[in-house]
Amino acid sequence: MPVVEFVPGNKRIEVPFRTQLLDAARMAGVEIGTPCGGEGTCGKCVVTVLSGRVDSDSLGQLPAEMVADGQVLACRTRVLEEPVVVEIGEAVERLSLESHDEEATCLVRKELLPKDWDFDPLAVRWRLKIQLPRREDGLFDLERVTRAIRRDWGKLTIVYSLTAMRQVARALRAEDGLVTVTLIREPGQLRAIRVEPGDRTTGHHALAVDVGTTTVAAQLISLTHGKVLGTCSDYNAQIPCGQDVISRINFAKRSTGLQELQSRVLLTVNRLIREVCRNHSVDPSEICNAVISGNTVMTHLLLGLDPEYIRLDPYVPTVKEVGYLTASEVGIDIYPDSWIYFSPCVGSYVGGDITAGLLSTDLATDSEAISLFIDIGTNGEVVVGNCDFLMSCACSAGPAFEGGGVVCGMRAALGAIEKVTVDRETGSAQYSTIGGGKPKGICGSGMIDLLANLRLTGWIDPSGKLDRVRPNPLIEVDGRRAAYQIVPAAETAAGRPVFINEADIENILRAKAAIYSAAALMLNRVGLTFSDLAHVYIGGGFGRFLDLENAILIGLLPDLPREKFHYIGNSSLMGSYMVVVSQDYRQRQLDLAHRMTYLELNTDSSYMDEYTGALFFPHTDLDLFPSVRERMLRGNAKMPKILQV
Amino acid sequence: MPVVEFVPGNKRIEVPFRTQLLDAARMAGVEIGTPCGGEGTCGKCVVTVLSGRVDSDSLGQLPAEMVADGQVLACRTRVLEEPVVVEIGEAVERLSLESHDEEATCLVRKELLPKDWDFDPLAVRWRLKIQLPRREDGLFDLERVTRAIRRDWGKLTIVYSLTAMRQVARALRAEDGLVTVTLIREPGQLRAIRVEPGDRTTGHHALAVDVGTTTVAAQLISLTHGKVLGTCSDYNAQIPCGQDVISRINFAKRSTGLQELQSRVLLTVNRLIREVCRNHSVDPSEICNAVISGNTVMTHLLLGLDPEYIRLDPYVPTVKEVGYLTASEVGIDIYPDSWIYFSPCVGSYVGGDITAGLLSTDLATDSEAISLFIDIGTNGEVVVGNCDFLMSCACSAGPAFEGGGVVCGMRAALGAIEKVTVDRETGSAQYSTIGGGKPKGICGSGMIDLLANLRLTGWIDPSGKLDRVRPNPLIEVDGRRAAYQIVPAAETAAGRPVFINEADIENILRAKAAIYSAAALMLNRVGLTFSDLAHVYIGGGFGRFLDLENAILIGLLPDLPREKFHYIGNSSLMGSYMVVVSQDYRQRQLDLAHRMTYLELNTDSSYMDEYTGALFFPHTDLDLFPSVRERMLRGNAKMPKILQV
Repeated sequence: MPVVEFVPGNKRIEVPFRTQLLDAARMAGVEIGTPCGGEGTCGKCVVTVLSGRVDSDSLGQLPAEMVADGQVLACRTRVLEEPVVVEIGEAVERLSLESHDEEATCLVRKELLPKDWDFDPLAVRWRLKIQLPRREDGLFDLERVTRAIRRDWGKLTIVYSLTAMRQVARALRAEDGLVTVTLIREPGQLRAIRVEPGDRTTGHHALAVDVGTTTVAAQLISLTHGKVLGTCSDYNAQIPCGQDVISRINFAKRSTGLQELQSRVLLTVNRLIREVCRNHSVDPSEICNAVISGNTVMTHLLLGLDPEYIRLDPYVPTVKEVGYLTASEVGIDIYPDSWIYFSPCVGSYVGGDITAGLLSTDLATDSEAISLFIDIGTNGEVVVGNCDFLMSCACSAGPAFEGGGVVCGMRAALGAIEKVTVDRETGSAQYSTIGGGKPKGICGSGMIDLLANLRLTGWIDPSGKLDRVRPNPLIEVDGRRAAYQIVPAAETAAGRPVFINEADIENILRAKAAIYSAAALMLNRVGLTFSDLAHVYIGGGFGRFLDLENAILIGLLPDLPREKFHYIGNSSLMGSYMVVVSQDYRQRQLDLAHRMTYLELNTDSSYMDEYTGALFFPHTDLDLFPSVRERMLRGNAKMPKILQV
Repeated sequence: MPVVEFVPGNKRIEVPFRTQLLDAARMAGVEIGTPCGGEGTCGKCVVTVLSGRVDSDSLGQLPAEMVADGQVLACRTRVLEEPVVVEIGEAVERLSLESHDEEATCLVRKELLPKDWDFDPLAVRWRLKIQLPRREDGLFDLERVTRAIRRDWGKLTIVYSLTAMRQVARALRAEDGLVTVTLIREPGQLRAIRVEPGDRTTGHHALAVDVGTTTVAAQLISLTHGKVLGTCSDYNAQIPCGQDVISRINFAKRSTGLQELQSRVLLTVNRLIREVCRNHSVDPSEICNAVISGNTVMTHLLLGLDPEYIRLDPYVPTVKEVGYLTASEVGIDIYPDSWIYFSPCVGSYVGGDITAGLLSTDLATDSEAISLFIDIGTNGEVVVGNCDFLMSCACSAGPAFEGGGVVCGMRAALGAIEKVTVDRETGSAQYSTIGGGKPKGICGSGMIDLLANLRLTGWIDPSGKLDRVRPNPLIEVDGRRAAYQIVPAAETAAGRPVFINEADIENILRAKAAIYSAAALMLNRVGLTFSDLAHVYIGGGFGRFLDLENAILIGLLPDLPREKFHYIGNSSLMGSYMVVVSQDYRQRQLDLAHRMTYLELNTDSSYMDEYTGALFFPHTDLDLFPSVRERMLRGNAKMPKILQV
């Protein structure tokens, strides 16, 4: 069998004739990010074949000059004759951790954030002075601990984990009965999961985790004061198994597919935990609680629950509220008896990320004003309601705004182009990157800017086709497909141009159409229109900025008075944080989950009509976007207003 | 280093010069039973050295003829020069499983047994017809299961184990919504631990387990009708780490001592489970509940809880009531999410075996008559009370009645001499064995018979010394120590004589004195005497029979009207069974544990006086035993009356 060697790293693997390079890499333990799931559409798995013979079908995806250089897509290339040596250099955006500066990213309106008096976490570390053992009263160790806890907490049932039982005898006798007990506040009872000698009330930590289809983020929280210490995010290691929830569900049907998906997402979560802990010198075993929010499919896969019936009519998942599970049961590498709390799910495609995300909106309050919440992710979710009703739906937007299905797309991470303007005359782009360094690719907010500006300057038409008529060296036509160069090779980090092609644009167009039409249809179902809304909340992994004017110009968001919009960033992560630090917010979330109804778009025939109408920049019906029409007429290319709440 | 080889089996091990043969065996994976913990007192670890040079100090324990044959005690022999070849033939009573016929061993008074209407087990397998998934109601799988359970069981909280969650999606869709759910009935909630498709209500099993210091017994119960299917028992594999609870606590202080003790007892329990399941063609994974009763130290060791403070003033253990622990947490090899329920403990040396054992006595009812419960084991426990008060204490009796510390002693297992008479003139013994085969050794009931008859016929004196004056070929005097041959070598299974020596007799004397004096002292403490008792219940591993007259004659039991006595056998196992099958009995047990007070004999100075007085057959104060005095005077050697209720 042919041998394939990957450099640098010199990992070698023997594989059958015609094995895909991507599979060979996986077998050799070389991780190559493939947001599209190896479908040949995202262009992320570029490698260079240094020697050996391969059969590649990369030309449609990569510029001719790259192919001439020996560059191929690993997912479109099969091994023919050994020895094949493959370089996985800088050109490959491998899975890489990203840690964020916390202070700047709280985008939530102040009045919706937990206040000091709400600080009331699910896990507490409680100092107790335990009466010393005495022969007279015949009280066992645990009885004395229970009495001391009840003195402070009232007559609750106290249960002990086996680990806590094993710790108690020595802990009680080490410092004259002064101990610190870690308590988990379950409904109706307290669970003691750890007993340590002395005062250990400091160094008390928890985690908020957002498990997205494409991106996973873990946030380390100090429970001493409820402060966020830091956040790390990364691509979900499940991506090679499929780019969206449907392809993951299909993958789970393979013989060990479910186990592989489960272990891959755990790998990502645990790596992020290690990383964020390392950054802040916290021992993961000091973390005694984690709140995990994910869509329904992600929640099921993380728990190893068969997701098949989520995809099959009548679309019924297994579990809404998960109950008490420990870190060791779930496979999360923190203190083994920690409670892993899962944000409750609502429907097949409206999960814990949404019930968490809503905590940053008026919908979690008793406001009568009607609000809309749009979560822009690989799975797009829309919720509308007020204190009287709450309705949700979901659509499959695809990973475009998170960098999937876009050759030079990437997450909102260091080196991502996050803002763009385009010169009307030359068609050249001006940009800025996250962190200010050389560009590595373009993230969602950059794509929105780019497409809005290309549209405004006339370099693309309403259907997303690039202008082939006006001469422009930045537009390269290759067969039926054209591409636009944003940054020349010389200016980029990898020495490769950052560009966008018409296939990329089509993916973005589809994503925005799916989201807009889901919102429009759902409002219609409850007898409302966009103009009835008091607030529109937008969540998503765009980093710190989302250009509102441009998002409206491409038709991602409705054309409403701008002050109604609130961009709230990764609201799933933010909501997880709120649940970690506040029992009141946890109750609010449960109330949200209980009163929310779920509209299944899969079975709604009008959805396709709405969607088709939205497959233009901004829409086939320009009456819906009066300000855009006016702006296009004026040819107004003024600098966009940045929405930063 | 010298090499030691064990035959048959040909296991070889290289060990340092002067390594003890017992340690060499342990290292080579050869298990040799040492009820005394390798103290050189039980004489159980006899092996034959076939070649090589050893340094042995076995002579005090073994008859000269055995030593001349090359037989040595493995615990008293060190390896000198290789190659040492050691035969561990029939002569060694290795750890061996014993399974019992169930029908004949229920010794409990009928009115105290659970009735048909009490059958109400802690774990149930419940058939449910679950509404099929429907798009309209938006109910997730678990919600529909919860609704169906509540329809039958009322508005309880229903929680699901992760395993059950993983099973539910497929199970609900396999047979049109017909499923069988295994439910654990915790206080205030139901825990669903298994969801299977179709009707699986048959084949539902549970375990009752008695974990004794010396002997462990596991009983398989069909929960279809609450019937006992079979029982297996074996020596506790902890024995090589110490013969009684104190020496085990000491062993636990070694660096990995606690872990070793825990894994050894789990080894025994799991082996017994495999065996009893194999005997009855039951898959251990079909067992969904186990009730374990052990003394406080055994309970702590099985859970890996540090037992040190049980032994240290003020004698305070960790846990009385263990709460919800699963089989996988505890390390019991049955269905992983099964509830392992531990019988509640009362004090340092009065544990779950006693709260279980009391269920077979009037003390678990609302009777006003005063009852005494004596559990005869390595740890002896005594409880006195009625519906108004309940007091308990414990004493260290040693393992003599279970075969430990007695050279030819053994458990009440196949081949054990269980009944003995002695001819007044010739001094020769007549005996019968359990199972009727050739004798292998003598069990507790046989020892009681033997000593009573030797005393009655004058072959031993009140202090337990053998008659050295009257000529008798069965009495062999070796230095200061004499031995009495019960069965000549030719008649035994192993071709070695079954005998008892004066050291053995002293161990039995100490055991009976410890128990009698604990009972006497406790009655005294509550202002009662033996004559105030309406019932005396005797528990212990004597097999099916305990000769009451003889037990009184040696002073193990008080001299009371015979009809007051009830021998109830292994009451800890019986009580565990009752808790498995009846929630009412479980509640009775908790009530017993809560209202029982505990008297610490370690700190009672009068105990030593009582004990010293009881170190005679039957007692220094013969006025306490009028019927014995009369019987001795009459020289009445009539056949003993067998007490079999």
